[in-house]
Amino acid sequence: MSTDWIDEVKWDKDGLVPAIAQDADSEQVLMMAWMDRDALLETVRTAQAVYWSRSRSRIWRKGEESGHVQSVREVFLDCDGDVVLLKVDQAGGIACHTGRASCFYRKLDAGKWAANQPVLRDPDEIYRKS
Amino acid sequence: MSTDWIDEVKWDKDGLVPAIAQDADSEQVLMMAWMDRDALLETVRTAQAVYWSRSRSRIWRKGEESGHVQSVREVFLDCDGDVVLLKVDQAGGIACHTGRASCFYRKLDAGKWAANQPVLRDPDEIYRKS
Repeated sequence: MSTDWIDEVKWDKDGLVPAIAQDADSEQVLMMAWMDRDALLETVRTAQAVYWSRSRSRIWRKGEESGHVQSVREVFLDCDGDVVLLKVDQAGGIACHTGRASCFYRKLDAGKWAANQPVLRDPDEIYRKS
Repeated sequence: MSTDWIDEVKWDKDGLVPAIAQDADSEQVLMMAWMDRDALLETVRTAQAVYWSRSRSRIWRKGEESGHVQSVREVFLDCDGDVVLLKVDQAGGIACHTGRASCFYRKLDAGKWAANQPVLRDPDEIYRKS
């Protein structure tokens, strides 16, 4: 299949775009990470979310350690062509490395950030080395 | 009220964070824009979304021209402290400058981006100069 579509994406000066992952069923916004060209191509090719890790400077297959992969149902591009939105099925119902459903678990409440989501699984258990 | 909460936000090298706006009722992801410290403080103070326009290098009160303001119900911060999520009431039901509900109106379908949202209002009408 043609990959001409990738040429409509406008990468920033580091060759990246922000990619928002939203749960396809609950509509909860799960996380935002970054993609380079190869990550987006691989995401579409495999229908599994693949990001670019800025801290590790490498492709990062979401769930490669945790098993919390994201199966991609739909891919959207915004009006400016510089932000991607994925609608995903989140394996384990956990997107965040803290063991919560979503990375956006801190809510501003009376001038403080308050955690408003439960930890569904202990991160030590998620990332236990065998 | 204390603004200590702002110090937990991790700004990028340009002093910005991505801010995702999600419709508080429909849960539709409306747009992603950028905020500097002042924009986020002003957003929280006024409960109206205020962004930083990178193209115009100035504070941008969402809806200042179009009237399509965003009333902010809730503000979330992600686990890394470097992405903000707003749950908003979108005035006019239109977030996008193209006159659509959401900026994410292009869906990847059979190797092409296809518009999958109607134009609710003609942009020429939205931005008509008096």
